[in-house]
Amino acid sequence: MNAALRSVALLTVLLCARHSTAADDPLPSWNDTARKKSIVAFVQKVTTEGAPGFVPVPERIATFDNDGCLWAEQPMYFQALFVLDRVKALAPQHPEWKEQEPFASLLKGDMAAVAASGEKGLVTMLAATHSGLTTDEFAKVVTDWLATARHPKTGRPYTEMTYQPMRELLAYLRANGFKTFIVSGGGVEFMRPWTERIYGIPPEQVVGSSLKMKLEMRDGIPVLMKLPEINLVDDKEGKPVGIQQSIGRRPIAAFGNSDGDLQMLQWTTISRSPQDQTPRLGLIVHHTDAEREFAYDRKSMCGKLDKALDEAPTRGWLVVDMKNDWNTVFSPPAK
Amino acid sequence: MNAALRSVALLTVLLCARHSTAADDPLPSWNDTARKKSIVAFVQKVTTEGAPGFVPVPERIATFDNDGCLWAEQPMYFQALFVLDRVKALAPQHPEWKEQEPFASLLKGDMAAVAASGEKGLVTMLAATHSGLTTDEFAKVVTDWLATARHPKTGRPYTEMTYQPMRELLAYLRANGFKTFIVSGGGVEFMRPWTERIYGIPPEQVVGSSLKMKLEMRDGIPVLMKLPEINLVDDKEGKPVGIQQSIGRRPIAAFGNSDGDLQMLQWTTISRSPQDQTPRLGLIVHHTDAEREFAYDRKSMCGKLDKALDEAPTRGWLVVDMKNDWNTVFSPPAK
Repeated sequence: MNAALRSVALLTVLLCARHSTAADDPLPSWNDTARKKSIVAFVQKVTTEGAPGFVPVPERIATFDNDGCLWAEQPMYFQALFVLDRVKALAPQHPEWKEQEPFASLLKGDMAAVAASGEKGLVTMLAATHSGLTTDEFAKVVTDWLATARHPKTGRPYTEMTYQPMRELLAYLRANGFKTFIVSGGGVEFMRPWTERIYGIPPEQVVGSSLKMKLEMRDGIPVLMKLPEINLVDDKEGKPVGIQQSIGRRPIAAFGNSDGDLQMLQWTTISRSPQDQTPRLGLIVHHTDAEREFAYDRKSMCGKLDKALDEAPTRGWLVVDMKNDWNTVFSPPAK
Repeated sequence: MNAALRSVALLTVLLCARHSTAADDPLPSWNDTARKKSIVAFVQKVTTEGAPGFVPVPERIATFDNDGCLWAEQPMYFQALFVLDRVKALAPQHPEWKEQEPFASLLKGDMAAVAASGEKGLVTMLAATHSGLTTDEFAKVVTDWLATARHPKTGRPYTEMTYQPMRELLAYLRANGFKTFIVSGGGVEFMRPWTERIYGIPPEQVVGSSLKMKLEMRDGIPVLMKLPEINLVDDKEGKPVGIQQSIGRRPIAAFGNSDGDLQMLQWTTISRSPQDQTPRLGLIVHHTDAEREFAYDRKSMCGKLDKALDEAPTRGWLVVDMKNDWNTVFSPPAK
């Protein structure tokens, strides 16, 4: 073999090797930092048969927060933006709202007054817009809204404001025998109409906040009416409750981004006994990228990350530095 | 070929054919009646790609009642027998029960008085024995009880009082891409410790009645305490609610045996619109075999089957005649 030929051969080997590495990388949007290495090491540990950390497939349960973990949550939780749009859309059928707060302020465009009404105001509007219709009707309202609503900053559909690195992580875990669940403070009926298409997570693997429901017969057809009464607030202390109610076993990996996920991270990762040597992964997405996304933590109204950030080092939770750990933030538009 | 040889050859063909049919039959404990044919026809319809009744795999949701549908429920719901045993076991820690009904009657062995206390009495004992401990502790209590308790009539462990034809049906549906769920009036935490081992149904696919829970930190370890307050009664009108809360989509097949399953059968099988041509299967196990199991329906205290039996013909629900449709009733002991 002459020198030129040898060079070509070498180049081919190198290119193929590079190509093969890139193609084999299940997390191409993750830079090769310590966080990525820890995730991969965890997955290898629990999937290596015969190794001490091996976890049988049925026990490979992973739970993901949604707002700020799988999709963005600024300038406001997307479901809150949905509520505001719904109040405007439903206003003609509710002339009384002109005199009632926080509806009146919203309809006048006085957003400062709406914000001042706080959580109580939001819950009032949430109950008014999320109840009094059937589960099927509500799913259609959500689907129609998502088809036309656009994010105020990027102008993109909300379902295109999902994080590509997290979607790769979902797929990577599933390829390794994990069952992936959403466990979100958001409304379960608000998420289910689209999580299968966008995240590959079917309705039965979505856990979230919910209203009570009542079975009724309407023209001989059974329907479930959504009532203006809270069934579960699947946030903070409510997340382990939601996990136990709907999943019934403890996850071995949990992914969050705010103090709303603190108890889920504790529930998932704190060992119950010295005998329990099951590897456990806790991960927090830290929003550090003002340029490509948003930068916020301890003082944010949506997705406040304070206590969980303090607790992360002692618990061994990975804190993803979005700016440095991710080479891509948002997923490309769905086809 | 001489006549003798021809006979042998023919016999071989016949035997092989028979053998091959038996081996291919996914429901060998079902006699070849109209019910079996209808089940197989339904499964073929929804799994035949390109055919009008085809249902994509993610939509193949099947829900099964437990008591009287997957395992027996006489002389009393097994969970009620568990409650009685628990009251006796816990009595030394509750001296006050000697003065309180229905505990006092039970501890004196006056079962007529216990029965007279009715549902209210049972709920009192259920709350007393199912709350005040953590979910992990309760799971252990259930597991320990099942390991030693024996059925009063057959002397067999309760987990050996499951119906072989229904277990074959579960496996047959799963082999055809169905996701099988339990949707039972029984307690979800009472079922989850053993349903995976016995039925192949994992905890996250078990829907049932539940108590409220509260997250607590105990010596730095998070635990979920079971509270004496009902969260969901997953029976009758509660079954579609439980299905929507935990599964989030409508089943295409439902299996029950009592009026407690009426609303689940309606929810599953009643078409929402003339456009919806999805094949739907409703099935009722009718307990007609006093010799091999129990014979009961309209007047039974446990598993009363009255309204659903009347409604079955109009709705097109299959009514399984246990005596004639099943050649085997109980599953062989688990290895």
